[in-house]
Amino acid sequence: MRSERGMLIVLSGPSGSGKGTLVKSLLSRRDDTVLSVSVTTRAPRPGEEEGVHYFFRTREEVEAMIAEDSLLEYAQYNGNYYGTPEQPIRRWLEEGKNVLLEIEVQGAEKVMDHRSDLVSLFITIPSMKELERRLRDRGTETEEAMAGRLRVARQELSRAFRYDYVVLNDEVEKAVDRIQTIIDAEKMRYSRMENLILEVMEDAETD
Amino acid sequence: MRSERGMLIVLSGPSGSGKGTLVKSLLSRRDDTVLSVSVTTRAPRPGEEEGVHYFFRTREEVEAMIAEDSLLEYAQYNGNYYGTPEQPIRRWLEEGKNVLLEIEVQGAEKVMDHRSDLVSLFITIPSMKELERRLRDRGTETEEAMAGRLRVARQELSRAFRYDYVVLNDEVEKAVDRIQTIIDAEKMRYSRMENLILEVMEDAETD
Repeated sequence: MRSERGMLIVLSGPSGSGKGTLVKSLLSRRDDTVLSVSVTTRAPRPGEEEGVHYFFRTREEVEAMIAEDSLLEYAQYNGNYYGTPEQPIRRWLEEGKNVLLEIEVQGAEKVMDHRSDLVSLFITIPSMKELERRLRDRGTETEEAMAGRLRVARQELSRAFRYDYVVLNDEVEKAVDRIQTIIDAEKMRYSRMENLILEVMEDAETD
Repeated sequence: MRSERGMLIVLSGPSGSGKGTLVKSLLSRRDDTVLSVSVTTRAPRPGEEEGVHYFFRTREEVEAMIAEDSLLEYAQYNGNYYGTPEQPIRRWLEEGKNVLLEIEVQGAEKVMDHRSDLVSLFITIPSMKELERRLRDRGTETEEAMAGRLRVARQELSRAFRYDYVVLNDEVEKAVDRIQTIIDAEKMRYSRMENLILEVMEDAETD
């Protein structure tokens, strides 16, 4: 069978939906799948490695990337740029790797606006009460910050219609199974199986 | 969770691709899935039951169904009508059952032309040589009939682009696993998960 291009997979959902944990577990299960690394202008924190956690770049470098349209999406938080470089993604896809973009809801929409060759997954919490419980367990939020978080989460849930799939994250391992199911099914899409069909047909002509 | 409508699943592929065996195995594994029963004007064979193998009807009855547009598709073979009644399918879907249409490539295209609310699977053999071997093993075909079968199979393979998914039938159990994966993934499509999202959001408003 001819080698197939990888799949670009956008994984998003409200803060607190557990995207990061799902991604880690998924990557440990699949060696055909890699996580896209973001570029940032913020300083590395202890233990963060160039090219693993982030590509650390200067403001000028990131602005040059924006100018030459080499970021799939970017945003500024707390005065720093964060963005998704397109070039490594393109290389991985050509090598047949699936590339995960773990990304906030706003950034995800920007990517979906610009590319149609992707599979998009919205991770949802089982209930707002459960989200509240998770945020409370972190113990880092004031009541006001919490109310704000919940309001934003509800707004983000209302954007789920932009995604191909909705994955319920009630239990991590179950949710990762669901993501695996979606990736496995998407690999059987006609567009990704066309080479197989051509090979089956060609095989007859050499009889 | 509110009850969801079932999914209409078209399963097609060349004669010899093993559709019938896959369907039997799939039905034994999933009690949320039923097989659509065709209507026919041919006489019942020994052991065939009304409503299980076919709905046996007169020519006049089937022609009335055609006239009132109550068949999803129909065709004539050897002077008999064969068709797919729409009404039982609608009822099953409303009850939340997935409905399988196991159907020849031409009939499948007629259904796909008329309905967009379905998931379509094309079953492929691993190679034309394997198809030839399977047909030879049956031992019922003349060389000429065999050549005709292979020619038709190749034409049918060239129609695979009409389908959402391609399922390789190299081994029955593996192929049924693949079909299960597709059904499970399709259940996570946004359109089928919208109720869950609404419930998660509503849950917050009652806080």
